[in-house]
Amino acid sequence: MKTERLNNVIRKMSEHGLEQMIISSPASIFYLIGRWIESGERMLVLYINADGKCRLIINELFPLEDEPGIDKIVYNDREDPVEILSEIIEDKKVGIDKNWPSHFLIRLMEKKRGLSFQNGSPIIDEARMIKDAEEIQLMREASRVNDKVMEEIIPLIGQGYTEARVCKLLGDIYEKYGTASFSFHPLIAYGANAAEPHHESDNTALKNSDSVIIDIGGITKRYCSDMTRTVFFHQASEEAKEVYNIVLEANRRGIEAVKPGARCCDIDMSARKFIEDAGYGQYFIHRTGHNIGIDVHEFPDISSVNTMEVKPGMIFSVEPGIYLPGRLGVRIEDLVVVTESGYEVLNHYTKELQII
Amino acid sequence: MKTERLNNVIRKMSEHGLEQMIISSPASIFYLIGRWIESGERMLVLYINADGKCRLIINELFPLEDEPGIDKIVYNDREDPVEILSEIIEDKKVGIDKNWPSHFLIRLMEKKRGLSFQNGSPIIDEARMIKDAEEIQLMREASRVNDKVMEEIIPLIGQGYTEARVCKLLGDIYEKYGTASFSFHPLIAYGANAAEPHHESDNTALKNSDSVIIDIGGITKRYCSDMTRTVFFHQASEEAKEVYNIVLEANRRGIEAVKPGARCCDIDMSARKFIEDAGYGQYFIHRTGHNIGIDVHEFPDISSVNTMEVKPGMIFSVEPGIYLPGRLGVRIEDLVVVTESGYEVLNHYTKELQII
Repeated sequence: MKTERLNNVIRKMSEHGLEQMIISSPASIFYLIGRWIESGERMLVLYINADGKCRLIINELFPLEDEPGIDKIVYNDREDPVEILSEIIEDKKVGIDKNWPSHFLIRLMEKKRGLSFQNGSPIIDEARMIKDAEEIQLMREASRVNDKVMEEIIPLIGQGYTEARVCKLLGDIYEKYGTASFSFHPLIAYGANAAEPHHESDNTALKNSDSVIIDIGGITKRYCSDMTRTVFFHQASEEAKEVYNIVLEANRRGIEAVKPGARCCDIDMSARKFIEDAGYGQYFIHRTGHNIGIDVHEFPDISSVNTMEVKPGMIFSVEPGIYLPGRLGVRIEDLVVVTESGYEVLNHYTKELQII
Repeated sequence: MKTERLNNVIRKMSEHGLEQMIISSPASIFYLIGRWIESGERMLVLYINADGKCRLIINELFPLEDEPGIDKIVYNDREDPVEILSEIIEDKKVGIDKNWPSHFLIRLMEKKRGLSFQNGSPIIDEARMIKDAEEIQLMREASRVNDKVMEEIIPLIGQGYTEARVCKLLGDIYEKYGTASFSFHPLIAYGANAAEPHHESDNTALKNSDSVIIDIGGITKRYCSDMTRTVFFHQASEEAKEVYNIVLEANRRGIEAVKPGARCCDIDMSARKFIEDAGYGQYFIHRTGHNIGIDVHEFPDISSVNTMEVKPGMIFSVEPGIYLPGRLGVRIEDLVVVTESGYEVLNHYTKELQII
């Protein structure tokens, strides 16, 4: 059990007026107990009581070594885990993991009539938002791998593979670095495809003067990386160079704005305003970034409507882009840690304009 | 809208005493409306009223053409989809999709105090259990691809790739046949690994006289295939041959038992008893099969405790196995459709003992 993290969650429970909660997401359970368990359809629940007692209700099919601070209740397929849970839960409001499958909640309501419920996930999301030293180190390692993968894949792209083929090659490269899997399906987008931020890589071939968006990430020791670079094939038009330099400066300004006390919307605006002032505001069609850690998208967003102040230990992406429909797209993305005095950038692969 | 399927669901709703229900699983929505939509965190709900009116509540990010019989309610990120849903729902018990994330249900309870809920998934699971002619044809196509993939992969295995490498090669072969993805992560298990039914394919190399379990499936036009064959490398011991022939006969007997009115447990017992009588009962450590369709594991299981009678249109696996810890494993699996008079086997790749 990660005691400090648990104590932090318990503190937040009392701030939210909750004395008990149920955590079911494998990522949140991993965050608190240091073990990754995927139990499929079978109920897996970490019950946390504000008095500090935790119970992990787990099917016998998922053996887990005993560990101090984790009180395991092992059930088998002939037993009813909701019944077990209902005997533990006290007659007070319960926080429920946002993604707990409804059929468990419906059964629990039947067994504990009159009990009230609230979405407990904001508590754990807020706790996970601030990374501790161990997590920051893991995020550095994950991004170091991502830098190396970017360095290897860019020369390969120039050899004329389709977008989909490059995605396959990426899998092999991540594997070489011991990365278990992608943190999201890689986005490799050529030319006009690069103007669609949610393009799915397909059999598009690379053409002369295409912009190439490379948005990639892997999961290393359970932590996610996420970085984007944009390069050009054989040549870049004057327009393409102009757009590239604007996005690069927006990326730099977004990062420069990161410090404790800055609001998420201030960071968004630092990047966005530069693009707007350059006349491309209507072509920057998404938020500037998102928090990241065990999950690739964590709470909160770095967006124009989020007035939350950032704090040391937060890690998020700064990823402005300009997308000219039918012509080209440019996005440049780095992960950034908020430090006591400012920021630390986790990605070090060059952002200079590259023609491959 | 697939009207016959919807009417069938509505009939079952009244059998279950429900006048309204919420479906959220992409597979069940696909089953009813013929479109596959994955909306991530954003609420996607098909509301079905027993009076025949359906509403699909969908975020504007997932554009869907208008189609007769589907009344779309499109919301954007500034709107609250649970509010929209709460205005549609009548003050009667509601069936809820088993995997609907709890935070939606908690919000709905807040907005509609006093409303009661029940797990509505058995209704849709029972409807999906009986495949119609269109689905049976799609399942035939999916299994035809699987037969071809099996035929291609077996000679490659003999070339000495690791288990994990074979899994990669499988991805390329499925892709060649236009199969979107695996229906489950392929299981390629050599020697002692083949004795662990849930082994994860790793860097194990093939050794002389190893048994090789090949349990594979792909998703073709949204329908899943699933087949297992076992072969031997260079030679097979007398014990291995004996075990193989027992499992083969158990597979045949399980299939022969399939006809309308047979109970799932009877089919299980037909395969299991032959293995028990041969003295290997303790080494057949799983159920005989599971239903399959849009999802690779559907309701119900073909197990020793399921007394449900099978009906025409059900499709399930018959997959007995014998696992001798530390030595070898053999499993032989085919998909079978229940017909009016008996069965149709969907897999045609040979089951003769092969030494590669």
